[in-house]
Amino acid sequence: MGGMQLYSVIITRDKEMKEKLSPLHFNQPMINDAPVVLTFCADFNRFTKWCNQRKATPGYNNFMSFYNASIDALIVAQSFTLLAEKAGLGICYLGTTTYNPQQIIDLLQLPKLVFPVTTITVGYPDETPQQTDRLPIEGIIHSETYHDYSNDTIDKLYQMKEAIPENIGFVDENHKETLAQVFTDIRYTKKDNEFMSDNLIETLKRQQFL
Amino acid sequence: MGGMQLYSVIITRDKEMKEKLSPLHFNQPMINDAPVVLTFCADFNRFTKWCNQRKATPGYNNFMSFYNASIDALIVAQSFTLLAEKAGLGICYLGTTTYNPQQIIDLLQLPKLVFPVTTITVGYPDETPQQTDRLPIEGIIHSETYHDYSNDTIDKLYQMKEAIPENIGFVDENHKETLAQVFTDIRYTKKDNEFMSDNLIETLKRQQFL
Repeated sequence: MGGMQLYSVIITRDKEMKEKLSPLHFNQPMINDAPVVLTFCADFNRFTKWCNQRKATPGYNNFMSFYNASIDALIVAQSFTLLAEKAGLGICYLGTTTYNPQQIIDLLQLPKLVFPVTTITVGYPDETPQQTDRLPIEGIIHSETYHDYSNDTIDKLYQMKEAIPENIGFVDENHKETLAQVFTDIRYTKKDNEFMSDNLIETLKRQQFL
Repeated sequence: MGGMQLYSVIITRDKEMKEKLSPLHFNQPMINDAPVVLTFCADFNRFTKWCNQRKATPGYNNFMSFYNASIDALIVAQSFTLLAEKAGLGICYLGTTTYNPQQIIDLLQLPKLVFPVTTITVGYPDETPQQTDRLPIEGIIHSETYHDYSNDTIDKLYQMKEAIPENIGFVDENHKETLAQVFTDIRYTKKDNEFMSDNLIETLKRQQFL
């Protein structure tokens, strides 16, 4: 965004810090197992400090600025990811970063106008897992305008995903009727999403982005 | 995010569509000049439709889901960017996508639970511009905890940026005292940011993400 570089990266290598960070990511084992954990943050603190030191009046304590800085942070995160993989490293994105933002802010001592957007663990992989299943590309792209999905198209797009033995296993294990129910009833529930939305908005206010 | 693929990409090639899209991006010339314009969208519409068709009750009309889908869309956008550049194409990000989201939504016919996050123009480049100036890497990374910037550190980090002839030119042309003032008074003003924040929040509500 305008060459402002609205991001910071916090590098966690220290064992004790990892042990404190781990529960904030629901004890996913990558935090303690990977040698390096990177927390990519939207950062308008540095730029705002520069403005204040240069007789300029910054106006970045608002939602637009938060979203712009988030975009910057994610572009950097994904560039890092692809370069790391090219160099033979393995990575894992932790989407849990925005579930407990306040606790991560406290642990990493993020000042106002800094917000944790995503976390990537890095290390040399000892396995070569299969690619995650993906929808057919025609389910993702739209020519000129958005072509909304008919019932038939939805059936066709998700057919492959629903037929994967691992996914059929998840449906059985969880005593559900459909794979979609595994998502809505267990993995990403309405209740959790609403709770975390309130939490996210509250924390954005505390970091002065709302 | 959980293999949900919460993104869609709208491809604009049609001359007439580009002419309509151009003013929504403040008439930046890339829209009409580049052969292809890609609008990367956060998309919970497709997944929600699948849930509804599979006896599952989706709960993704909330802010957390919007932010998760935005992260997905940006990871895809930056992966595309790096692959395109590797293939000899040139790209340009348009940060203007979130300035007029409602008009882009109308033109591209984006349904509820779909939101334009960023736009990338693509084509074969006829020039090899210099890399944009960047802060020294030690200004971006933090070991273990965020180390807030002292006045001295800010001076040192921004020294190079402030010494670039092009940037000195911007200060002079705009009759400003400092480069920071070019950002705060002209490029990214408090007034514009606050106006656009309200706009963004209003449009998120209309798309049922808030």
